[in-house]
Amino acid sequence: MGELRERQDYPVDAVRRFLEPGPTVLVSSAWQGETNVMTLGWHIVLDLKPSLVGLRIHASTHSHAMIRDSGECVINLPTTALTDAVVGIGNCSGREVDKFARFDLTKQPAAMVGAPLIGECHACFECRLHDETLAARYNFFVFEVVKAHVAPLPDHPETLHYTGDCTFMLAGRTISRRELFHREMV
Amino acid sequence: MGELRERQDYPVDAVRRFLEPGPTVLVSSAWQGETNVMTLGWHIVLDLKPSLVGLRIHASTHSHAMIRDSGECVINLPTTALTDAVVGIGNCSGREVDKFARFDLTKQPAAMVGAPLIGECHACFECRLHDETLAARYNFFVFEVVKAHVAPLPDHPETLHYTGDCTFMLAGRTISRRELFHREMV
Repeated sequence: MGELRERQDYPVDAVRRFLEPGPTVLVSSAWQGETNVMTLGWHIVLDLKPSLVGLRIHASTHSHAMIRDSGECVINLPTTALTDAVVGIGNCSGREVDKFARFDLTKQPAAMVGAPLIGECHACFECRLHDETLAARYNFFVFEVVKAHVAPLPDHPETLHYTGDCTFMLAGRTISRRELFHREMV
Repeated sequence: MGELRERQDYPVDAVRRFLEPGPTVLVSSAWQGETNVMTLGWHIVLDLKPSLVGLRIHASTHSHAMIRDSGECVINLPTTALTDAVVGIGNCSGREVDKFARFDLTKQPAAMVGAPLIGECHACFECRLHDETLAARYNFFVFEVVKAHVAPLPDHPETLHYTGDCTFMLAGRTISRRELFHREMV
């Protein structure tokens, strides 16, 4: 489906660079010898130090129980090289399918969690469950990013941004406005 | 700073189309005769029916208190026509500056909340505070979108997506994968 990416360690307090622009991500999980992966567009950066990210993971998904029970996941950042896998993963359930096999994705061991990294993704963020206060009410989980792996190039990968209606916006060009910044916006 | 947009009523359960791709937004507020606006990149879609959106609004901002005390805000969607205003608004405080005046933005009355719509924005989503359980711990507020206004064209506006480091990714082209969808991904 895609090429393996050579990734390097990346500061966990800087992962907002990849998540704040709103890409569709692949969230991998592991529990009791089983692995799974889901497509997710509903996430938020909540803090930099500690590096906190919120995910809304619907209770109907197989991943929901696996992530809740293991208290861990990996947020993987796919690019347009994986478009069809991203859609396919979002259109079947881990209850019925081994998605890693079906979509020819490579499981790689993480350093600090049991969930696998996806070898073909540009970046992988290992996460531990930090707060599930709003899990019952909104399926909203707060995670801490405990380890980050990022491919050094390209600087700005061509990410997918789901708009509903089977349509993705693709990441376009980047612009800098450094001269207008007095302080860093967060 | 920009042209006024002609907007139409839009279904509140469909605003994920504009928020899920992760744009930088302008959040306007009103309280005790004062108005304000902030730049925000940390938001999440939480549900479609009811239309719930989470915002992380730092406690140090002037908007934080205004939005918390009024229990209302408007999420406004700017395009690249407003890039310099988006940066400028994020680089000053409503404690010291009337940002609507400084950045030449037009306040328009909302239908259901006290906070103003921004006339130059492509879309405006009127919001009422729904849940502040995680406000003290993470500055995280859950809002319900109670009324939505969207310009009918263009179909896919050129939005700004902040990556940190004074740099924005701009929305690029769109692609459809309808043939791969068995069900709608949310």
